[in-house]
Amino acid sequence: MSMNPCDIIRKKRFGGELTELEIRAFVDGIVDGSFADYQASALLMAICINGMTDRETLALTLAMAKSGETLDLSDVAGVKADKHSTGGVGDTTSLILVPLVAACGVKMAKMSGRGLGFTGGTLDKLESIPGLSISKDVDAFKQQVRDIGCAIVGQTAELAPADKVLYALRDVTATVDCLPLVVSSILSKKLAAGCDVVVLDVKTGSGAIMDTPEKSRQLAETMVRIGRLSGKRFSALITDMDQPLGSYIGNALEVEEAIDVLAGRTGGDLKTVSLTLGAHILRNAGACETVEQGIDMLEEKIQNGEGLKKLGDMIEAQGGDRRVVEDTGLLPKAPKQIDLLAERDGFVTSMCTSDIGNAAKLLGAGRERKTDVLDLSVGIVMRKRLGDPVKKNDVLATLHVGEKSDRIGAYNLLRRSIRVGDVPPERQPLIHAVVE
Amino acid sequence: MSMNPCDIIRKKRFGGELTELEIRAFVDGIVDGSFADYQASALLMAICINGMTDRETLALTLAMAKSGETLDLSDVAGVKADKHSTGGVGDTTSLILVPLVAACGVKMAKMSGRGLGFTGGTLDKLESIPGLSISKDVDAFKQQVRDIGCAIVGQTAELAPADKVLYALRDVTATVDCLPLVVSSILSKKLAAGCDVVVLDVKTGSGAIMDTPEKSRQLAETMVRIGRLSGKRFSALITDMDQPLGSYIGNALEVEEAIDVLAGRTGGDLKTVSLTLGAHILRNAGACETVEQGIDMLEEKIQNGEGLKKLGDMIEAQGGDRRVVEDTGLLPKAPKQIDLLAERDGFVTSMCTSDIGNAAKLLGAGRERKTDVLDLSVGIVMRKRLGDPVKKNDVLATLHVGEKSDRIGAYNLLRRSIRVGDVPPERQPLIHAVVE
Repeated sequence: MSMNPCDIIRKKRFGGELTELEIRAFVDGIVDGSFADYQASALLMAICINGMTDRETLALTLAMAKSGETLDLSDVAGVKADKHSTGGVGDTTSLILVPLVAACGVKMAKMSGRGLGFTGGTLDKLESIPGLSISKDVDAFKQQVRDIGCAIVGQTAELAPADKVLYALRDVTATVDCLPLVVSSILSKKLAAGCDVVVLDVKTGSGAIMDTPEKSRQLAETMVRIGRLSGKRFSALITDMDQPLGSYIGNALEVEEAIDVLAGRTGGDLKTVSLTLGAHILRNAGACETVEQGIDMLEEKIQNGEGLKKLGDMIEAQGGDRRVVEDTGLLPKAPKQIDLLAERDGFVTSMCTSDIGNAAKLLGAGRERKTDVLDLSVGIVMRKRLGDPVKKNDVLATLHVGEKSDRIGAYNLLRRSIRVGDVPPERQPLIHAVVE
Repeated sequence: MSMNPCDIIRKKRFGGELTELEIRAFVDGIVDGSFADYQASALLMAICINGMTDRETLALTLAMAKSGETLDLSDVAGVKADKHSTGGVGDTTSLILVPLVAACGVKMAKMSGRGLGFTGGTLDKLESIPGLSISKDVDAFKQQVRDIGCAIVGQTAELAPADKVLYALRDVTATVDCLPLVVSSILSKKLAAGCDVVVLDVKTGSGAIMDTPEKSRQLAETMVRIGRLSGKRFSALITDMDQPLGSYIGNALEVEEAIDVLAGRTGGDLKTVSLTLGAHILRNAGACETVEQGIDMLEEKIQNGEGLKKLGDMIEAQGGDRRVVEDTGLLPKAPKQIDLLAERDGFVTSMCTSDIGNAAKLLGAGRERKTDVLDLSVGIVMRKRLGDPVKKNDVLATLHVGEKSDRIGAYNLLRRSIRVGDVPPERQPLIHAVVE
């Protein structure tokens, strides 16, 4: 059966529902070149405006998942779990929940890609640990998961290459923020990565791709619905990104905060979200009955030090210096620190989270282009949270500045991002909703 | 002011009205490459689905008209007129009305492009006249219009190059049949060609790009509205294409029929439409008060032979053998003729005009690809019109076949295109409507 690109585009242009065959012809076509990029972008725009049914979104997700290699984890015993965040600032939950969940006996097998962003991704953060490598072939990756119960490595297999092509095109044709396209992009990579249980962290607020709770809820609901149609166990949390989640923003800085949480030295929102995500994984994997039980299990692994030890095991298994979990002084440090002071008395009334992230990027913590080289030591430590009372000259945040940092640009952007006013703001809940 | 392609695409994606500046940035961008083809196709799709206001369509038309050279005819005295047909089969009106209108004193300055189609365009038809050249530079073109009142030559100037880029893209992204895009494509070339009066012949029926009277009316009305907003005098006729307009289909064959009409030997629908179009030009140019007067003027030029003489003058001015107007035997003739006979008694109940056109193309009269070489002698002569009574073995049509013709394919396609049944069909009017 011949599948002409024009016929497929025309059908969606006039609001028709594409068949599985037509969607496969599109996805295979963008990989093998029989669907030209200008044809793909016309179809993407028609999808943005006319939408996709669940059946179409599922077919698109599955076709993208199958567009390259797929990981087969069936020869690793037990339930394998994965976690995905739509991205935020100070979002260090993976480094906390992966060892904690593994310490509870559920295997965490994370194969990540590197993205652009405010700070580096989980892979970059891990690479700030002396000696640690994120390169493992698939067999070694699986063996590590068998041996110690967790691994976070870079993609060796080419997972969902269709997503790479489509994402590059969406980025330059104003078709990024389209629900079925976002959903299929995220889920296709998760499905290709072969886990049984996936928990999604959908951020909402000034630092999130979905800026309103309503859009975030729609995204979460669609992902869980499509994810479950694919036969996996999916849950999603909608969590607040109206301020950075953790207080430490950067790469080595975020590793430091993750270790502090695992060592029981630090609490707060980062710990709460990490444990809640982890508890959903435990519950979905059958390791406990309720999320509350899961949180108790994870809390215990903090108190008895098994979570921190598991992080040490993972660091060691990937060639890193495991002493870092006892001595964060072994992490790279920025040569210079600059405090941002409050200019008046009052309360922290709002933060522009995306601009705080951009300030960290100006310091050298994140990539604008794929080829940018990060300074893993730089970043920002937030000293106040939304609603906190402040006095004039209190330290609001500390910039950790490197040789190549745009320190003036970062300082000015950070200064504009944190507002101090007379009245404490109404606070949103940290966890807006759970979708399952 | 920076005009980011993504911002422009995004605005139309969400149904916004683009400004003149944004539309100019798009059109200039597709010519200079700052708007990539995959970005252009995304915007084209958004335009197809979300539409364009008259203000946007006008801005798009003007920006495309100005995207290359524009012809300045101000140094040719008097009103200069042009005519455009949306394309059909046996559509030889230009060869008839151009000399007739010029004989009435209104200058016809036609600079045409070559398109794809069932048969060649007006340029190809003219080239079947021995010696005739359609190549003239702009100065010689204008001088011919001054000297004898009419000229039909190939585009030397690059008129509306943006249209060429957009059309190629629309053709492969299912965005051809979109009103503002069709309108701007046609009108931009007419505006760039510099005439004061333009009459449009919008075809409707089985051989037309707009297949329903309603779509044709919408196209005609929008073109006239936008055309008048641009400051020119536009009118449009909506004319029937449920059967070939003339009886002769081909290149030399259509020249022969045009000469027959100008010589007063042939009447029928082709003559009626040609004279009505020409009369609208005369009226819009101020050469008469009413269309009826215009038709009388043109009829007179047939009766007194001035129209035929003017065609002879034009042929001579372009290097051709003017004796052809007195002796059509000088035109190239196909070596072989094959009759298509009626298989039963009855009435001609329907014709698939587009397939009759495609049969002519199979004989070699039209181009599938730009590089195809035409056989100017081949084609089809229709012997019956819709509603005509036929007896078994009456000749329905005669194929004029050349060495390289696909005679079997053409014969079978033609045979399927003409239906004979028991009851004569309800007839549509030849001229459905006049829009002005």
